[in-house]
Amino acid sequence: MAKPLILVTNDDGITAPGVRTLIHIMKKIGDVIVVAPDSPQSGMGHAITLDSTLYAEKLTIDEESEGIVEYSCSGTPADCVKLALQELMERKPDICVSGINHGSNSSINVIYSGTMSAAIEAGIEGIPAIGFSLCDYKWEADFSQAKEYVQTIVEQALQHGIPKGTVLNVNIPKLTKDELKGIKVCRQARANWKEKFDKRKNPMGKDYYWLTGEFELLDQGEDTDEWALANGYISVVPTQFDLTAHHAVQELNSWNF
Amino acid sequence: MAKPLILVTNDDGITAPGVRTLIHIMKKIGDVIVVAPDSPQSGMGHAITLDSTLYAEKLTIDEESEGIVEYSCSGTPADCVKLALQELMERKPDICVSGINHGSNSSINVIYSGTMSAAIEAGIEGIPAIGFSLCDYKWEADFSQAKEYVQTIVEQALQHGIPKGTVLNVNIPKLTKDELKGIKVCRQARANWKEKFDKRKNPMGKDYYWLTGEFELLDQGEDTDEWALANGYISVVPTQFDLTAHHAVQELNSWNF
Repeated sequence: MAKPLILVTNDDGITAPGVRTLIHIMKKIGDVIVVAPDSPQSGMGHAITLDSTLYAEKLTIDEESEGIVEYSCSGTPADCVKLALQELMERKPDICVSGINHGSNSSINVIYSGTMSAAIEAGIEGIPAIGFSLCDYKWEADFSQAKEYVQTIVEQALQHGIPKGTVLNVNIPKLTKDELKGIKVCRQARANWKEKFDKRKNPMGKDYYWLTGEFELLDQGEDTDEWALANGYISVVPTQFDLTAHHAVQELNSWNF
Repeated sequence: MAKPLILVTNDDGITAPGVRTLIHIMKKIGDVIVVAPDSPQSGMGHAITLDSTLYAEKLTIDEESEGIVEYSCSGTPADCVKLALQELMERKPDICVSGINHGSNSSINVIYSGTMSAAIEAGIEGIPAIGFSLCDYKWEADFSQAKEYVQTIVEQALQHGIPKGTVLNVNIPKLTKDELKGIKVCRQARANWKEKFDKRKNPMGKDYYWLTGEFELLDQGEDTDEWALANGYISVVPTQFDLTAHHAVQELNSWNF
């Protein structure tokens, strides 16, 4: 069988250790092309660049990636995928992988996630796609312990295909290789952020705010991604972009329009 | 009964005719507070400002809105809602309405929509929320024909409550009042954008791209938002932020992890 063609992207920027790790794992599985943002895009959600120009610069980042075609792109993660598919790649990739994100994209974080928006963008275009995140925000986070799991998940996705209309949201707990217990398929836990804004005055005396907050888990289920992560498992959530709450259609039809 | 407290926001910016129309309709229903972006934020998806400061400026935009408290905010639509709820409002609003957007947010557009991200942000916080969009991108679009329908939908939402875990995505076709046939509860149509990038050279000889594209409907259903809009109806889609593809969990559990 021909080697699979793998599109790699992320939201922390093309030089982030997380994406470099992902590239090196993907090299073992197939032919790799990288199209990733030229600067960090965390919290960008599914933003796209509608009213500005996009640049894409071919470059080489490190020796280990020699021979891999890499583009640094001025846009958001979703822009990177669009540009890769329409302009930079000669054929559709067999799979698109995004990450490994520096920080969790479990539960409600999926909504804000640039990592997942890239995967979702590929999914909308009919390409199997997976977003990977490590629950460690640090730039110097240790991505080595999960290498084999990441490889297994991508190989299984290539073998089985990802269910239609879904992409996978994979989160890896911050644990050593020995502590990791395996992989669990989960649902997205119900949670939100209890926002707190840190209100300050700028040197000109004007108020401004920094967004801070605390994660609040509102879900006691043992079938959720948060449960899996807290109990030593890598979580895999099938994530869809049909946002219809089908169960609510009937109720709304009783309204008096 | 006390007048309901209504938070109004949008993604086209606080001076956009669409949000001014929405404010004037909401004045008839309750007490209004406006927290909206100081500049257009279309295509921002669910972006939030993680690593930068946020400003909020109290201001008055037009005479018709006299007496209404309005803030212009430097952030994204989701930032506006977070800041409103945590810092700018004294109590939780009874409902949050976003829009009226200049342009459609039907079918797959919901994914890229700043209008809907504001509504979803409110929904995550447990507040009934509705995003309104008119299928006309023009700044000088005519929002008058749908005024009564917008009012009815908000009044019905206040009366019945919006189903838990969902927010409403309302799209209004570009039709005259006489042509509008009514309101239909729908599901999100399957569709995507066939992207085309317009590749150009800048004055320094460097390639750059503009994102353009054609909307491609992939769904023949007569229960979709696209069908409703094409047939003269206002579409109402209950939209959820639990993105789990529950039907896919079983299939993924057959993988060999």
